[in-house]
Amino acid sequence: MITSRNNEKLKLVRKLHERRWRGKLGLFVVEGEDLVEAALAAGYEADELLVAGENVEPALLAEVSTLGHPPRVMGVFRRRDAAGTADVTLALWRVADPGNLGTLLRSADAFGAGVMLSEGCADPFGPKALRAAMGSTFRVPLLDFELRNAVALVADGGESLDDLDLLRYATFVLGSEREGLPDDVLACCAAKATIPVQNVESLNVAMAGTIALYARSRHEAVT
Amino acid sequence: MITSRNNEKLKLVRKLHERRWRGKLGLFVVEGEDLVEAALAAGYEADELLVAGENVEPALLAEVSTLGHPPRVMGVFRRRDAAGTADVTLALWRVADPGNLGTLLRSADAFGAGVMLSEGCADPFGPKALRAAMGSTFRVPLLDFELRNAVALVADGGESLDDLDLLRYATFVLGSEREGLPDDVLACCAAKATIPVQNVESLNVAMAGTIALYARSRHEAVT
Repeated sequence: MITSRNNEKLKLVRKLHERRWRGKLGLFVVEGEDLVEAALAAGYEADELLVAGENVEPALLAEVSTLGHPPRVMGVFRRRDAAGTADVTLALWRVADPGNLGTLLRSADAFGAGVMLSEGCADPFGPKALRAAMGSTFRVPLLDFELRNAVALVADGGESLDDLDLLRYATFVLGSEREGLPDDVLACCAAKATIPVQNVESLNVAMAGTIALYARSRHEAVT
Repeated sequence: MITSRNNEKLKLVRKLHERRWRGKLGLFVVEGEDLVEAALAAGYEADELLVAGENVEPALLAEVSTLGHPPRVMGVFRRRDAAGTADVTLALWRVADPGNLGTLLRSADAFGAGVMLSEGCADPFGPKALRAAMGSTFRVPLLDFELRNAVALVADGGESLDDLDLLRYATFVLGSEREGLPDDVLACCAAKATIPVQNVESLNVAMAGTIALYARSRHEAVT
């Protein structure tokens, strides 16, 4: 039973809340039973499993948690290389908000899509992104950023999303909320699409990506 | 120039970060130039406008801000009664996450929809919800919770969203992420719809609501 906050395992958990330590050690922390189960079910290996009242004092586990409601279980897991394939992918360009990134992973999972992350994206294995993804992080193919048959989703000036033959495209490219997509990324795209909206400058990036996947899945359903 | 943290205006701002004070005083705080402009443009009245370096010490304004990056401008605004009408509305049942609520307001604005909030929803005028809504809070009709011609969006067991004649319905009802919709709310709905997904139990509530509005707008575009 861990009874000291200076315990090495607790120190490790605290370190892994920082992205640079996750990168350095190739490890990440999963909080809560549901997420730990999802990671194990997807074949991720747990280096450590901390269970409140079993092998660690509940108050100490609560202390290293990032959650308002402290979890009963936390795990330290080993990252794996990006792997898998998918017929359709979301290519995320500098999507730095971890909540949006996690939500997009959840939607990608829901529509059977993969995800490509550019540099400057939030870390999908950070605490907020993991939480928003609700376990989808462990199932969605994370692929190298490479634009082929890509449609850029732009706030305005593109063809209406519905007018495009979406099945011709394999990748939807989404930019950061603030800056959108730079010219060199747009130049790699075969088409530009816009979701017709009123009043607002743009939809939230997670909404736009989710609508694109939904729209494409409807085209699939018809054919 | 405000130079003391005990200044009454700063004390008021701090109080208004709490929901009960917003309720009691009928006031709320808006942070950042963009949001302040959006509130003014929509006809909301500013009781106070605090501008860093003009009428308040920048460090003191930063101290009462909820933002990581302190804003240059903060305003204390007066709430208005729910008003307006809309052909389509989202009825949110106990959507307690302020980020999801704000995002749904932004999507409602984008698709010309209104929003109804049940008891137990997050406060749309709280700091996180205001931020996620990006100004849409001030434009979207906030209506009383009343279900007419309503479709319940349910995680499973409903008709596929696309198979419904969406123009027959005026309201999409969305439940809390954890508990979904209770039987007495479902009993008031004319139909149940499900967005076809794989792998995951459900989409994020903001994604589901946004897809419903998008799907309905596509039906409108066709007719």
